Order: sequence, then structure tokens, then C-alpha cells
Amino acid sequence: MTIKERIEESETRQFKAVFPNTTNHYDTLFGGTALSLMDEVAFITATRFSRQRMVTVSSNKIDFTKPIPAGTIVELIGRVSHIGTTSLKVEVNIYIEQMYNYQKEHAIFGEFTFVAIDKNKDPVKITQ
Amino acid sequence: MTIKERIEESETRQFKAVFPNTTNHYDTLFGGTALSLMDEVAFITATRFSRQRMVTVSSNKIDFTKPIPAGTIVELIGRVSHIGTTSLKVEVNIYIEQMYNYQKEHAIFGEFTFVAIDKNKDPVKITQ
Amino acid sequence: MTIKERIEESETRQFKAVFPNTTNHYDTLFGGTALSLMDEVAFITATRFSRQRMVTVSSNKIDFTKPIPAGTIVELIGRVSHIGTTSLKVEVNIYIEQMYNYQKEHAIFGEFTFVAIDKNKDPVKITQ
Amino acid sequence: MTIKERIEESETRQFKAVFPNTTNHYDTLFGGTALSLMDEVAFITATRFSRQRMVTVSSNKIDFTKPIPAGTIVELIGRVSHIGTTSLKVEVNIYIEQMYNYQKEHAIFGEFTFVAIDKNKDPVKITQ
Amino acid sequence: MTIKERIEESETRQFKAVFPNTTNHYDTLFGGTALSLMDEVAFITATRFSRQRMVTVSSNKIDFTKPIPAGTIVELIGRVSHIGTTSLKVEVNIYIEQMYNYQKEHAIFGEFTFVAIDKNKDPVKITQ
Amino acid sequence: MTIKERIEESETRQFKAVFPNTTNHYDTLFGGTALSLMDEVAFITATRFSRQRMVTVSSNKIDFTKPIPAGTIVELIGRVSHIGTTSLKVEVNIYIEQMYNYQKEHAIFGEFTFVAIDKNKDPVKITQ
Repeated sequence: MTIKERIEESETRQFKAVFPNTTNHYDTLFGGTALSLMDEVAFITATRFSRQRMVTVSSNKIDFTKPIPAGTIVELIGRVSHIGTTSLKVEVNIYIEQMYNYQKEHAIFGEFTFVAIDKNKDPVKITQ
Repeated sequence: MTIKERIEESETRQFKAVFPNTTNHYDTLFGGTALSLMDEVAFITATRFSRQRMVTVSSNKIDFTKPIPAGTIVELIGRVSHIGTTSLKVEVNIYIEQMYNYQKEHAIFGEFTFVAIDKNKDPVKITQ
Repeated sequence: MTIKERIEESETRQFKAVFPNTTNHYDTLFGGTALSLMDEVAFITATRFSRQRMVTVSSNKIDFTKPIPAGTIVELIGRVSHIGTTSLKVEVNIYIEQMYNYQKEHAIFGEFTFVAIDKNKDPVKITQ
Repeated sequence: MTIKERIEESETRQFKAVFPNTTNHYDTLFGGTALSLMDEVAFITATRFSRQRMVTVSSNKIDFTKPIPAGTIVELIGRVSHIGTTSLKVEVNIYIEQMYNYQKEHAIFGEFTFVAIDKNKDPVKITQ
Repeated sequence: MTIKERIEESETRQFKAVFPNTTNHYDTLFGGTALSLMDEVAFITATRFSRQRMVTVSSNKIDFTKPIPAGTIVELIGRVSHIGTTSLKVEVNIYIEQMYNYQKEHAIFGEFTFVAIDKNKDPVKITQ
Repeated sequence: MTIKERIEESETRQFKAVFPNTTNHYDTLFGGTALSLMDEVAFITATRFSRQRMVTVSSNKIDFTKPIPAGTIVELIGRVSHIGTTSLKVEVNIYIEQMYNYQKEHAIFGEFTFVAIDKNKDPVKITQ
């Protein structure tokens, strides 16, 4: 596969319903839960692109543009955005989807950096 | 949108990493966790198709074809499979994806039935 | 013990309070949580009957007869319903119990099939 | 019902499988998880006895006699042990049940005190 | 370090926000969640004091003086209160802190006893 | 209180034991769990400084310097690092503490930005 095809193939989606076990006392998705879901999606995207052992080394600026109310649906989409020699970056966007109409809005954007490691946890090259 | 387009549009995917908080003492995904994820994906699919208040009324036979080992990725795909007057059915398939190669296998199949209800919890017609 | 005594002995009960961490946005027990509890009770029942390594192979039709409101108590009861050569079936019923009066109603019924496996995960006979 | 019958009727059982999401780094049931399950069972027992709004006011000495290994089953049994004017006590015992033989041992004992409250959270008499 | 310094050094604090995934149907912190947090803080305190493998053997009387409302902050503080030959005791206090003013009140007090064990799970002396 | 005193007073600590329900398949703390804990500590710090309704608007670059092994203790420390007109920044550091010796290392650094809102969710000034 070309790099472009591998990026398409490794795009990773996750729909979640915003139920009470994910919310804060404002009845919106707790920011920490959002970050946890984003890191999981980013990790899966990075792993499905490289098929190597990947670990998070950093997240860049993450913007929480809109609060996400209880009783909505969120869609997370992870996509490889940059491929370096030993690291790669994954963009994750979260969208709010209303349950009872077709309104869909962007809510959160973040970018995560991963490095590939071998069994001794030493960094190795990203397979290109 | 035609019914066919609505079915395409409401297809719902969820990738998850099989971490220790989801496994049983055999180090495979706990069956109850799999059922919980399937019901969530089925509920989101039904809601995104109908844009109505949907409640689960039954699940048909669910086949656990393969155990899902810890340290793999699962993909759940929900898709509307039948539309009745006041109920609809959603098929959910779970696939196991290896992390470090391209192997992907079917693991679990299930079908869930939902009815649409109004604010008084009385059944209403599915919008067609 | 006779088979009949083993069925009595392995009957498995689980009471749970329906707190916010188990509910959906309708303030009723999330269907996925109910399925997860049912599979756990069915697994324990099957294991306590056979004292062998058991894995879920399927669930038959599960009927969600009544929604289960937040602030109630549920009782799950698992009971072996059929014993085959290499598989057995467990029925699970969920009852809703009101907290502040003696009303108790049936809410969900399901049946789960298990097979016995050895250490190599090959099917073995159910001990009779 | 007599008090004795109400005590029998309100006895509350909960079986749980000791899976990785409940254990500590010694691969035994985390003490905090055990306490949380005990308080839930005690609360349900107190509520099912009195059919009144009950709140925990204290737990007496709780003895952790035996560690509970991962891959076992636990049974919790709650039973009203003392009835006062505005409070009652519930004993909770936890037993470890091996999965693959009939060995069953006592592991933890505790006693919890509850008071009945009205809607304004003022203490009221236990219905006798 | 002196014993007194080791007690100071091992004092262990944990702040938590009381979100819906920790509450009961009265919209207050579920008692079982409070006990679970207390045992975790007590375990960390005991381990940080002794730097040995510690296991909970009992909790003394725990007093739930005040219910803890949703939408508040709790602070848990663990502190070694007694050092025996093979066991030590840890006091844990929980305080409720209002979010939008400086009011802080004591809510729960408990004391936990730990013993030190070696790799074979046999009791050993507390390092003094 | 002066600003400096308010910063001291609102410093917020959280100790956690790294148990299996928080780890990934490498047996290290899952990055998403770390981010969730960091956001909770940052939110509590911001709220305790301002005593106003605070919402996360962004996180700056977060560096995961060291993986955090299962069976260790982590300490999170949140501290207000910048106070603007309608927003403030909170730094969160995570340290790994070994259980059985006194080694303590820095593992993760992040900075979170919060804004104060009123009951209509409109931004308001930070109380100075």
C-alpha cells in the first residue's frame, strides 16, 4: 500500500452516547473523559497505520471549542497527519451529533505524537 | 433521503482497544463487555437512522464465534437491517484486528430490535 | 449430587442498586449494562454447575419487557435450564424491585449457552 | 409479616466474578472494591427490610480474614442483625468460592449501621 | 529519617470531584465509593510509610458524619496513626469542600490496619 | 488573601495506585487515564483558586516523558500558573513513586486553560 492508502485505511472512528457515567456536574461530557477517548482513538489510529508498538509521547494544543451536552452522541475521528522517521502524528476531531435531528457540530480538536518502540522499549523507525 | 441512503448514513462504527479493564480471567474480552458495547452501537445506529427516541425491546440470537484476546483491537459495525411500522432491527458485527499485522477476523454477530417511543413512553411509528 | 441438586446449588443471585453510573439519558438502566450483568450471572451459574472452564458461545432471544427506572433495585437470577454433552444453557431473569414498597415485577428474560473447554481451549464434555 | 420473616425476606445475595478490573497489583480483590460491594449489599438489605429511605451512618470493625485471588467467585450475603428505634444494623459476609472445585471459605465480615430519613433528610422511626 | 519525619512524609492527599459516576439515587456520594477511596488512600499511606508490601487486615469503626452532595469537591487525607511490630494503622479523614465558596467541613473518619508481608505472603516486621 | 496565597491554598494533590483497571496492554498507565486524571486535578485547582464555575477551553502541549509501570504510585500536583482577565492556566505534573523504595521521578507535564462562566454559560471575569 502507498502511504496515502495506509492513511485512509487506518482512519479510526468511534461513536459514543453521552450517558451519566461520562458527565460532570454541569451535565456536559467531562473534559477528562473526552481526553481519554481521544487518546484511545489516536493510539488505535497510530497502531493501525504502523502495525508497530506505539506509545504516546505528547499531545499538542487541544481546543475544547464547544461543551458536549448529556443526551447527545459524539463521533471521534482519528487520522494520521504527519509521518517522521521514528514518530508520527495523529489528529483527532470530536463532533457532537444531536439525537433527534441532523445537526452535527465540531467540538474538540487535538493532535497526538507517537513513537514506535521495540520489545526492549527502544525507539525504532516507523515502517514506511 | 431515501431509506437506502438513511441506512448508509446511520451505519455506526466503534473501535476499541482490549485493555485489562475489559477482560475476564482467561485474558479475553469479557462477554458482558462485548454485549454492552454491541447494545450501545445498536442504540446509536437506531437513533441516527430514525432521529426518534428508541428503546431496546429484544436481542435475537447472538453468536460468539471467536474469543477476543487482550492486546487486540475490536471494530464494531452497526447497520439497520429491517424497518417495520413501529420497530426496526440493527445488526452488529464485531471484528478482531491484530495490532501488529493486517489480520482481521469476524468474532461476534448479533441483531437488536428497537421501538420508537414518544415523550410519554408510548410507541410511535418509525419515520419513513 | 444429582443433576437436580446441582441445578439448585448453582442457582446464582445478584442484587444491584440502579445508580447513575448504570443509566442512560432516559434515566433507566442502560440495556448494555443489563446485558453485561446477565452475562456475568450466567457465566457464574454455568461455572458453579460444572466446575469447569466455561465460555459463552451464544445468547438466545433476550426480551426487555419493561424499562428499569433509576432509583430501583434489580435482582438477577441465573439457573441452568438445559444440559447437553458439551454445552449447557442458563436462563437469567431480571426483576425490578421498588425501594419503598413491596412491588416486584419481571423485566428481562434471556438464555445463554456455554461450552466447557480444557486448558488448550478445546471443547470437552460437561461433567455429568 | 413478623420481624423474623422480614429479616428472612430481606436477606440479600450478590455473586461476582473477580476479573482484572477489580484487582490490585497483588492480583487479589482490591480492599476498596470489597468495601464498595459490601456497602451496596448492606444498603440494599436495609432498604428491602425497612422500605424506607436509608443512609449509612457507620461501619463497625471489618475483618479481612483472607485475600481473595483473581479468577475466583465471591458471594456477598447481607442480613439485618439488629433493629433499633431509628437505626438498624446489617451484617455482610463475603465468601470465596473456587471456580473449579467445591471449596468455599469465609473471607470478610463487616457490620453497617443505617438510619431512616424522610424527604427533608430528618431521621424517622424504623417501621416495625 | 525519624518515625515522625516518616509519618509527615507519608501523609497522602487525594482531591476528587463528586461527579454523577460516583453518586447514589439521593445525589450524594455513594458510601461504597467513599469506602473505596478511603481504602486506596490508606493503602498508599501505609506503603509510602513502610516501603513494604502492605495488605489491609481490618478497618475500625468508620463514621459517616455528613452526606456529601454531588457537585462538591472532597479531600481525603491519610496519616499513619499507630505503628506496631508487624502492623500499622492509618487514619483517613474526608472533607467536603464547596466549589463556589470557602466552606470546608469534616464528613467521614475511618481507621485502617495493615500488615507487612513478604513475597510468600508471610507477615514480616514493619521496618522501624 | 493575596493572589500568591490563593495560589498556595489552591494547590491540589492526588495520589493514585496504578492498578490493572488503569493500564494498557504494555502494563503501563494508559495515556488516556493519565489525561483524565490531569484534567480532573486541573479543574479542581482552577475551581479552588477562583471559586467560580470553570470550564476547560484548551490544554497546551503535554509531554509524556516516562511510561508509568503497573504497581507504582502516582502523585499529581496542580497549580495555577497564569491569571488572565477571563481565563487562567493550571500546570499539572505527574510523578511516579516506587512502592518499595524512595525513588521518585517526573513523568508527565501539562498545562490547561480554563475560563470562568456564569449561570447562562457566558464568560465572566476571574475574581482577582
